[in-house]
Amino acid sequence: MTNCIIAQSGGPTSVINASLSGIIKAAITHKKIDIVYGSLNGIHGIINDRTINLSELFEPFMERLEILKTTPAMYLGSCRHKLKSCEADPDTYRKIFDFFTRHHIHYFFYIGGNDSMDTVAKLDAYAKRINYPICCIGIPKTIDNDLIGTDHTPGFGSAAKFVATTLLEIAHDAYIYDMQSVTIIEIMGRNAGWLTAASALARNTYNTSPDLIYLPEVSFKPSQFIQDIQNLQKQKKQIIIAVSEGIKNEDGNYIASSNTTHNDLFGHAALSGVGKALEQIIKNTISCKVRSIELNVLQRSAVHIASKTDIEEAFEIGRKAVQYALRGITGHMMVINRIQNHPYQTSIESIDVNDVANKEKVIPKEWLHPNGNDVTLPLLNYLKPLIKGEAKIDYKDGIPQYISHSHLSELSRS
Amino acid sequence: MTNCIIAQSGGPTSVINASLSGIIKAAITHKKIDIVYGSLNGIHGIINDRTINLSELFEPFMERLEILKTTPAMYLGSCRHKLKSCEADPDTYRKIFDFFTRHHIHYFFYIGGNDSMDTVAKLDAYAKRINYPICCIGIPKTIDNDLIGTDHTPGFGSAAKFVATTLLEIAHDAYIYDMQSVTIIEIMGRNAGWLTAASALARNTYNTSPDLIYLPEVSFKPSQFIQDIQNLQKQKKQIIIAVSEGIKNEDGNYIASSNTTHNDLFGHAALSGVGKALEQIIKNTISCKVRSIELNVLQRSAVHIASKTDIEEAFEIGRKAVQYALRGITGHMMVINRIQNHPYQTSIESIDVNDVANKEKVIPKEWLHPNGNDVTLPLLNYLKPLIKGEAKIDYKDGIPQYISHSHLSELSRS
Repeated sequence: MTNCIIAQSGGPTSVINASLSGIIKAAITHKKIDIVYGSLNGIHGIINDRTINLSELFEPFMERLEILKTTPAMYLGSCRHKLKSCEADPDTYRKIFDFFTRHHIHYFFYIGGNDSMDTVAKLDAYAKRINYPICCIGIPKTIDNDLIGTDHTPGFGSAAKFVATTLLEIAHDAYIYDMQSVTIIEIMGRNAGWLTAASALARNTYNTSPDLIYLPEVSFKPSQFIQDIQNLQKQKKQIIIAVSEGIKNEDGNYIASSNTTHNDLFGHAALSGVGKALEQIIKNTISCKVRSIELNVLQRSAVHIASKTDIEEAFEIGRKAVQYALRGITGHMMVINRIQNHPYQTSIESIDVNDVANKEKVIPKEWLHPNGNDVTLPLLNYLKPLIKGEAKIDYKDGIPQYISHSHLSELSRS
Repeated sequence: MTNCIIAQSGGPTSVINASLSGIIKAAITHKKIDIVYGSLNGIHGIINDRTINLSELFEPFMERLEILKTTPAMYLGSCRHKLKSCEADPDTYRKIFDFFTRHHIHYFFYIGGNDSMDTVAKLDAYAKRINYPICCIGIPKTIDNDLIGTDHTPGFGSAAKFVATTLLEIAHDAYIYDMQSVTIIEIMGRNAGWLTAASALARNTYNTSPDLIYLPEVSFKPSQFIQDIQNLQKQKKQIIIAVSEGIKNEDGNYIASSNTTHNDLFGHAALSGVGKALEQIIKNTISCKVRSIELNVLQRSAVHIASKTDIEEAFEIGRKAVQYALRGITGHMMVINRIQNHPYQTSIESIDVNDVANKEKVIPKEWLHPNGNDVTLPLLNYLKPLIKGEAKIDYKDGIPQYISHSHLSELSRS
């Protein structure tokens, strides 16, 4: 008997279930694989023997894989767990491989970000050491687009589409009042500014906003920030600013964490986000209306506005992962290579996961505007194809139809 | 020569331009009306003679009215201006009627909320006093659904659909981690809880969230709030709470009101802090992961997820407003009457604007759950039809195609 197991880890994206759907579809239909298991809550499910039989759940209802493809978050649940080395924590490795042995698992698919790729690398190395026959494949996902070795990450395109669409809609909102105003839009991204850069895709023949873009790749200087706004205010009234949550000052400290001027109801200093911090910097200097909008988890969960390109790539990278594993490839992460931009064309391949794990890809310096407050055309050209096409979502009673998460909610009844 | 003028006022909704589109379409095609003007920035455009010729802009390109129908915010811009009485400010009334006379305006359409209906009432009364022949009609809009005399307000259904969809997507996001957590979703509504109540439409066969709903109609008691959460935590780990920005304590003070560092665009203390305030109340008592998400202006601008029912009603109410005005009706606000729920059927009529202006409709007590933390089935049945159907939006390069706001942005270059 030869079985496989799939797990999901880290933060959600709009298409991480599309990759899951692709893996399930390919694995269920392949005759070399008998049962497809899902590990609940990432690697924890394997360690604690909490799994579901995905073959049973989906084989009689293959059409459910289509709904799964466009269901937000993670069908199998998630965890934030970085495996220690096998020397430091041999017990956990024994549990994992004991589980693999008992359940005849010879293929392991882990959909995740940096930490998950580290897990893939460690399990692959351990398997080789103990001579356990298993192929371990990592499937990338992150809205941050900060994994190296791949042109871009599944999940990024949909988040980028949400950000650009929302920015355009907020721009329409901002222009209705004939008065000087600054609107700050806070976008996810601690160290890499890819997603914030995507706000520039909202620009079109009539919309020039965002007017200023601040990214973690560039040191943030409050005095320059105020100067940027004041310069713009000479030409226009409504200023819209896109900012990464992770911008830092010249000493490398987050702007968001240095703001302790807000007190909550109980007089405690509230740790406010970067939007509120910038609001305060503006209010201290410039007399005009200021508001900040935090896009928050909607960036990673708003599947109703997901990118079709992203969904299809995520599904395909999952499907290909199964093919690669069945060819005996192990210790690899699947990647997307961009062949050309016009028309947009990619290929899916794989690279050694050790070349990826624990590394981070930020925006190259030459793609940043020398002024430090905008992006450049090459970056826009890189981003454009990733948001194209609209997800096909079925609605029931006015609400998108997603697949049930009741196996997670029931499991977690305390 | 007989002309008409249209203006928009107050905060945006996703369908206020659909009403504008309906008025323009009916007025342009009616032989009794020669030129259709648009007043820029509400009544200010009339006072300061800043208008655009909508006949010129749309008559040769009627297909643009379809894009206008699904364009966010307000094509004509907005203002927050409550007219003083004509005794207190005769000069403004003289300016307005001087404008009407010079431009042969005999029909005035004002799309807005409470304050705008007050303007319609005042201009109608003044016209009668000076014997100026004009028909003044108010077209309701507000995401708050708090206007009386109408079953519901255009704009509410689309905001409700955004809230319910987003809540479901956030619920998927919340269930992925196998740990105790509270997610607070802050929804617009200062005095009326209609929009927050609509979060309950996210419940379906597998999703029971929101688990708790707090509305401005019910006094908020922090101790009961903590009790509600602790009771639920005995049964489930992930708790999702929907809360109106405007909840008040037993003394009638806003829970968010001590946060005076935030002002909205008009200098009103913005009630944007209730999520953070509740976060703190929980953190002071219960040891678990807490986060709050403010849906912010996305509730009123996310046209990409607008309700088809809402768009069509908004368009139709605009179209009918022109018919009513041409029949000589004046000093009225257009209203929607619900004839039946199964199948959903409505009629559009009008009522005396004096019966509407400066009044507020909150959720009736019998539609609130006696526990004070939920809604009831009759309220859900009232809400359900309003979010049905999806907007047909064209996308270009992955971004929704809306109509240009450049006439506003150019106008406001300082």
